[in-house]
Amino acid sequence: MKKTLGATDTFFPVPAALVAGGTMAEHNVITVAWIGIVSSSPPTVGISLRKTRHSLGIIRQCGEFTVNIPPARLFAEVDYCGLVSGRDVDKFEAAGLTPTESSVVAAPIIDECPYNMECRVTGEHEIGEWVLLLGEIVETHADAEVVGADSRIDIAKLNPLVYCAAIREYWELGRKLGDGFNAGRSIHQ
Amino acid sequence: MKKTLGATDTFFPVPAALVAGGTMAEHNVITVAWIGIVSSSPPTVGISLRKTRHSLGIIRQCGEFTVNIPPARLFAEVDYCGLVSGRDVDKFEAAGLTPTESSVVAAPIIDECPYNMECRVTGEHEIGEWVLLLGEIVETHADAEVVGADSRIDIAKLNPLVYCAAIREYWELGRKLGDGFNAGRSIHQ
Repeated sequence: MKKTLGATDTFFPVPAALVAGGTMAEHNVITVAWIGIVSSSPPTVGISLRKTRHSLGIIRQCGEFTVNIPPARLFAEVDYCGLVSGRDVDKFEAAGLTPTESSVVAAPIIDECPYNMECRVTGEHEIGEWVLLLGEIVETHADAEVVGADSRIDIAKLNPLVYCAAIREYWELGRKLGDGFNAGRSIHQ
Repeated sequence: MKKTLGATDTFFPVPAALVAGGTMAEHNVITVAWIGIVSSSPPTVGISLRKTRHSLGIIRQCGEFTVNIPPARLFAEVDYCGLVSGRDVDKFEAAGLTPTESSVVAAPIIDECPYNMECRVTGEHEIGEWVLLLGEIVETHADAEVVGADSRIDIAKLNPLVYCAAIREYWELGRKLGDGFNAGRSIHQ
């Protein structure tokens, strides 16, 4: 039996990514759960920010940002970066995060995050009180110890943080179940 | 030390959601990992489909779709719905999925998925070879046994499937780490 819950933005599982904008000299970081790939070709990520967010102005001005996937152990730091505004505090410093030079964009990547994407803004769309920014992914980085010989990321070693939005819960991954583009072949006739 | 991996759409953790279009009489289902909330007000989900996808025409024609979050145990069925085309086969039937009447939209929800969102298309944007469809969330449903007395979803009971895209791995959740809008208060001065 189904229960009807109304029109809500409850959604899961999602990343709780740290999005950084600005430059190595002056930067800000914000936690973004409204994030996802919007095109594979060209590889493009979409992030949605409330119009009132301090980071929106910084990202619009520079036209660049980075997406940083935190490890599960940093859940309190990630939560902190969503709680306070960069107008009031240097969140990198307060949360013990290290801005590190990117390869292509001016915005820093975050050293403590084992997977990082450099993005250039290619478009934006207003949706009610939110702005969806589209960012072409121009480079990615991962900590050497989570990258296999074939450049494949070891998810178990990386242990990414998972968020269940609106329900407001941080989780870590448990068990790998199967491989994509493979597990379904048992059903495929 | 960071390794540089190039411009890739590798991204994780993401949902592997089943998106259904059409009507109770004629419907199709497709697995979508390029999905996320793009606005909380009005609550709006974005799904990206390759332009060649059969489901894109169906959803554009009806202007409605549903998003269905599968339980982890259905990972093979979810993978199957991404492997084959609705042009060739009735994926609902082949995967043992039950189309169930929605409250607001014509597209069915999927009974075997414990969380379901009904959506009305409010916009679309072409991004290279992909189309981002925006859908306002007009109703949501969850299995009664995963909904608490306060209408809060019990994530442990629901056990949602998690996907790591490009790496192509299905995972289930492990342990809850903390609460959002709370865990970061230990850092907040």
